[in-house]
Amino acid sequence: MSAPMTNSSQDIQIYEIKRMDLKGSTIINGFPGVGLVSSIVANYLVNTLNLEQIGLMDSTLFPTVSLIRKSEPHHPVRIYAGTTPGKPADNIVVFISEFQPPQSIVKPIAETLIDWAQDQWCSLIMCPEGLVIEKEEGAQPEDEKSVRVYGVGSTHRAREYIIEPNVLPFSEGVITGVAGILLNEGKRRNFDVISLLAEAQQDYPDARAAAKIIEIIDRLMLHTRLDAKPLYREAERIEAQIRAVQSKAVVDSKTQNQFSGMYG
Amino acid sequence: MSAPMTNSSQDIQIYEIKRMDLKGSTIINGFPGVGLVSSIVANYLVNTLNLEQIGLMDSTLFPTVSLIRKSEPHHPVRIYAGTTPGKPADNIVVFISEFQPPQSIVKPIAETLIDWAQDQWCSLIMCPEGLVIEKEEGAQPEDEKSVRVYGVGSTHRAREYIIEPNVLPFSEGVITGVAGILLNEGKRRNFDVISLLAEAQQDYPDARAAAKIIEIIDRLMLHTRLDAKPLYREAERIEAQIRAVQSKAVVDSKTQNQFSGMYG
Amino acid sequence: MSAPMTNSSQDIQIYEIKRMDLKGSTIINGFPGVGLVSSIVANYLVNTLNLEQIGLMDSTLFPTVSLIRKSEPHHPVRIYAGTTPGKPADNIVVFISEFQPPQSIVKPIAETLIDWAQDQWCSLIMCPEGLVIEKEEGAQPEDEKSVRVYGVGSTHRAREYIIEPNVLPFSEGVITGVAGILLNEGKRRNFDVISLLAEAQQDYPDARAAAKIIEIIDRLMLHTRLDAKPLYREAERIEAQIRAVQSKAVVDSKTQNQFSGMYG
Amino acid sequence: MSAPMTNSSQDIQIYEIKRMDLKGSTIINGFPGVGLVSSIVANYLVNTLNLEQIGLMDSTLFPTVSLIRKSEPHHPVRIYAGTTPGKPADNIVVFISEFQPPQSIVKPIAETLIDWAQDQWCSLIMCPEGLVIEKEEGAQPEDEKSVRVYGVGSTHRAREYIIEPNVLPFSEGVITGVAGILLNEGKRRNFDVISLLAEAQQDYPDARAAAKIIEIIDRLMLHTRLDAKPLYREAERIEAQIRAVQSKAVVDSKTQNQFSGMYG
Amino acid sequence: MSAPMTNSSQDIQIYEIKRMDLKGSTIINGFPGVGLVSSIVANYLVNTLNLEQIGLMDSTLFPTVSLIRKSEPHHPVRIYAGTTPGKPADNIVVFISEFQPPQSIVKPIAETLIDWAQDQWCSLIMCPEGLVIEKEEGAQPEDEKSVRVYGVGSTHRAREYIIEPNVLPFSEGVITGVAGILLNEGKRRNFDVISLLAEAQQDYPDARAAAKIIEIIDRLMLHTRLDAKPLYREAERIEAQIRAVQSKAVVDSKTQNQFSGMYG
Repeated sequence: MSAPMTNSSQDIQIYEIKRMDLKGSTIINGFPGVGLVSSIVANYLVNTLNLEQIGLMDSTLFPTVSLIRKSEPHHPVRIYAGTTPGKPADNIVVFISEFQPPQSIVKPIAETLIDWAQDQWCSLIMCPEGLVIEKEEGAQPEDEKSVRVYGVGSTHRAREYIIEPNVLPFSEGVITGVAGILLNEGKRRNFDVISLLAEAQQDYPDARAAAKIIEIIDRLMLHTRLDAKPLYREAERIEAQIRAVQSKAVVDSKTQNQFSGMYG
Repeated sequence: MSAPMTNSSQDIQIYEIKRMDLKGSTIINGFPGVGLVSSIVANYLVNTLNLEQIGLMDSTLFPTVSLIRKSEPHHPVRIYAGTTPGKPADNIVVFISEFQPPQSIVKPIAETLIDWAQDQWCSLIMCPEGLVIEKEEGAQPEDEKSVRVYGVGSTHRAREYIIEPNVLPFSEGVITGVAGILLNEGKRRNFDVISLLAEAQQDYPDARAAAKIIEIIDRLMLHTRLDAKPLYREAERIEAQIRAVQSKAVVDSKTQNQFSGMYG
Repeated sequence: MSAPMTNSSQDIQIYEIKRMDLKGSTIINGFPGVGLVSSIVANYLVNTLNLEQIGLMDSTLFPTVSLIRKSEPHHPVRIYAGTTPGKPADNIVVFISEFQPPQSIVKPIAETLIDWAQDQWCSLIMCPEGLVIEKEEGAQPEDEKSVRVYGVGSTHRAREYIIEPNVLPFSEGVITGVAGILLNEGKRRNFDVISLLAEAQQDYPDARAAAKIIEIIDRLMLHTRLDAKPLYREAERIEAQIRAVQSKAVVDSKTQNQFSGMYG
Repeated sequence: MSAPMTNSSQDIQIYEIKRMDLKGSTIINGFPGVGLVSSIVANYLVNTLNLEQIGLMDSTLFPTVSLIRKSEPHHPVRIYAGTTPGKPADNIVVFISEFQPPQSIVKPIAETLIDWAQDQWCSLIMCPEGLVIEKEEGAQPEDEKSVRVYGVGSTHRAREYIIEPNVLPFSEGVITGVAGILLNEGKRRNFDVISLLAEAQQDYPDARAAAKIIEIIDRLMLHTRLDAKPLYREAERIEAQIRAVQSKAVVDSKTQNQFSGMYG
Repeated sequence: MSAPMTNSSQDIQIYEIKRMDLKGSTIINGFPGVGLVSSIVANYLVNTLNLEQIGLMDSTLFPTVSLIRKSEPHHPVRIYAGTTPGKPADNIVVFISEFQPPQSIVKPIAETLIDWAQDQWCSLIMCPEGLVIEKEEGAQPEDEKSVRVYGVGSTHRAREYIIEPNVLPFSEGVITGVAGILLNEGKRRNFDVISLLAEAQQDYPDARAAAKIIEIIDRLMLHTRLDAKPLYREAERIEAQIRAVQSKAVVDSKTQNQFSGMYG
């Protein structure tokens, strides 16, 4: 482990594109983790609920890339928000990130996110995560029913009212990345942060695990009574799209570096 | 990906050599990208329109090199400007860079460029780019007619008035480097940034793709009714010159490092 | 040895969760060292004395991880405190760290710890450590009686009243890491710092060495007359738990890095 | 090309040892380049004209070495000055550097040098350089007459009065290192900087190329009518001395690093 | 040579433990160099003259280690002082370092040392050094008489009164490390710095070379008429001790790094 750099949260900025009253709203953290479960969930919610981009997170330390979608350029980290049919009084906010932040900026990102959540008087940060499970060799592929979902909360309040009545408790383990720091900071600040962890494959985007978490989020917060079948198909479509961006990114990355040594 | 450095845009300076009223002018971004399309376009415009050097961009982080052209030393990043025969009221501004900036300074460069564009009341930044296409093996070499050009714009305004009536929309994809950041920043600041992407070979300077973009720029902005043939010949001449600088640079780079370990 | 970074103690913060009068209390340093002796001792004391978390140490330079224990998230470095049955007037404070800090932040951590100890009017910092012993090949496994414990103190006072009457003097040698810096700083500031060093295996967590130090800490400070047998069993249970976190951490660490090169 | 560091010119200092009026004087840049031509020229002038050390350039970033010459310690970068027999009214200033600066500090060095030149009201900076020529295999060794010398100037003034009447113009090419930055900065500041480039071998110190440049400097500035023969012998003696320092430096460098990993 | 960091002398601090009037005293630089000659000399003088620790040098950049000697913890860089039997009016000051500083902090260390020497009105800094000699193969082991000692001084004063009457002049060569910077800085500041260089083996601690320098220091400054025999035996004892610390340090260093990758 080489000497790490100091990256304060001053290196990360949030820019608002459209002002919206977010008091009491829930934030979904879509920074990628195990099985890209968080990314699939976040994209699904943005698409299904027709959420609108209200801001973006940026930093000199983020990748130098523009993502073109529907003929418009997009920053790699974006903030979407909107209402849900089942609970029109409350807003839902979704952070989408097209890249997994390197270790050195995970803390500044998480701290900027929770600072902003508190500034906006949001009431909850929800982190969908995959939980690696080791399978016996030769085991049969499991059906969706068998995907278990665990939960952990940063506060007594979150554990008592959200985790315990709804999912299995995640009692012992380790959560890394943005979600891990959000949980720690939520505990320190007495701010509600929840992570839902669905059993997932760590080696590829896992649409089934994501769909399982979407069902629970719907039941807990959205009350939209999503039909299960399209949910799984949509989750699979997003999985495919994410794979495509990844392979594209690799090609472009090669291209980019081709001449960079010119006088270097 | 190792821990990145913080390079603020304060590390990049623009020095004016000659003051000129640039209100309403278009900036052509010549920082090199895929197929060096942007470099060929930028050099072509400087040569053909007899543009004059009005400034330079410099940084401690730029290569330590002087380029001698017509017996005069030149900085590696220069700013040229002048009028065009077809539209004498408006100026055109061209950024030429002799090197592809490393990842870590792409953002500061793009932000300094767009800051300056806004300070000068320019109206548009145009980014010529190559778009990598994968060919089937054994495919016949294509003639110039077959080079397709796509476009993407940072604002609704740019998309409606410039992209849609003139080129194919670039609806889904990834744009890296200075052009990508200019598009993102243009969107955030509501400043018109356009990227024209011509199908190009990523492995060597592609004069044909550049010529195709020059034709469109001429039609859209310059109205000089350039003759196609010399355009292609000139583009090829520039391609050859850029290749020469590259191989030269590699030799000098070796020379430079020869004694640097003396007491190191 | 590459050029080291400057990490001032400003990069390390201590956050209080619960205010407690710590005047005159003893601090146990649980940052991991040889044989994880310090970690086992620190965890044993927290568990056995039912100490309460009163704060945490944090830094942008710490690992980006949340440890879930009993369904609650925990920071990787925590501060516990409470009274002991045998000496209810005085508090005992324990620092627990789930990771061994890299070389570059050992000094800032130790300086922040001793600054805080002086701010809180604590009277002593105790560092349990393992001491590597080289065994002859084919030697019989030693019984617990044969584990020798050495001691070293930062001040004349500490050596005369605590080390000399109770343990063998550690007269010549080298102590690295947080404990080493605490001893040096204690000497410079005339603050009592003691290190107890039990002969230990360097290659794996050594519960027996830890138990031996716990006995001495109990005799010197706690006066709880701990029963030896459960002590050894408990120490072994903690050893097993630490091993589990380590292997888990390795798995998660791999997972985390999987997509980090996306556009990197 | 890894992320470069920011090294401002504040990292480089010039210390005066003896104050001298340098108004109107010419500075010879002796930072090493191709064929060590600049080093040989600079040392020759210091020796032949009996120049006196008037200052030094220093930086935390320079090698940690003292050069002992005639029983006196010397900094690796020194400034010499004095008058010439042929032009006693004007001073000549020579920068000698015993090492080739790494890429990252070339700009700060050049900027500090030209800042100082302007502060002292010097009138010209002269950069002797080698120009790599590719020979056909089996070609006969060339005699000294055949070494061509080219020139390039930072200003119209320098090109018209110094370059054009005396040497071949260097019309197209690339100049790297301190000389390249001096030319660029001279152009931007409208300060006269000249580089004389003699055809040279890039793989070893080239005394013959240096001698050719010395002849031109003598003719243009010194008017001392140097005898050619001793000039070439002296240039060869310096070439030998520089080789000796280099091999010595390599040995000492090894020695220095021997124990640096002790606790590292 | 990779881009070096900027380490100002602000990163290095000297802490006084005991105040003593050091006006006119001589400082012995014990930072390790070729053959560890400086270390052996420095340790010998501390032991033989019963010098007392009066301070220490510290930095975040120094190794994180405590050296236990006679049951007391010690910083890796310490300052000792005291009087000598032969010259009781003047104090002698010795810097002892247990590690060879990496290249990047050699300058800050040397500058902090000489700043402090001037602040304390010391009159001379003496640097004992080894000088690598290349032996013919099969040459007989030389007896102690044959070890030649050379000297170099930073000022005319030092050369005339100390070097020339007593040792061979070191007229041409290179001195690296702390001693080299002290000589350069002494010249620039007109402060007397002397280096005595004894022919030494570069591959291992060379007690004989050290003893030869101690004889000269005794004759020049201490006037204690040291008996030669115990001097050589003592020098050999110190050589052995230094070897022991080195191998110990390697072991501890390995131990230290064992768990540092836990979540890294």
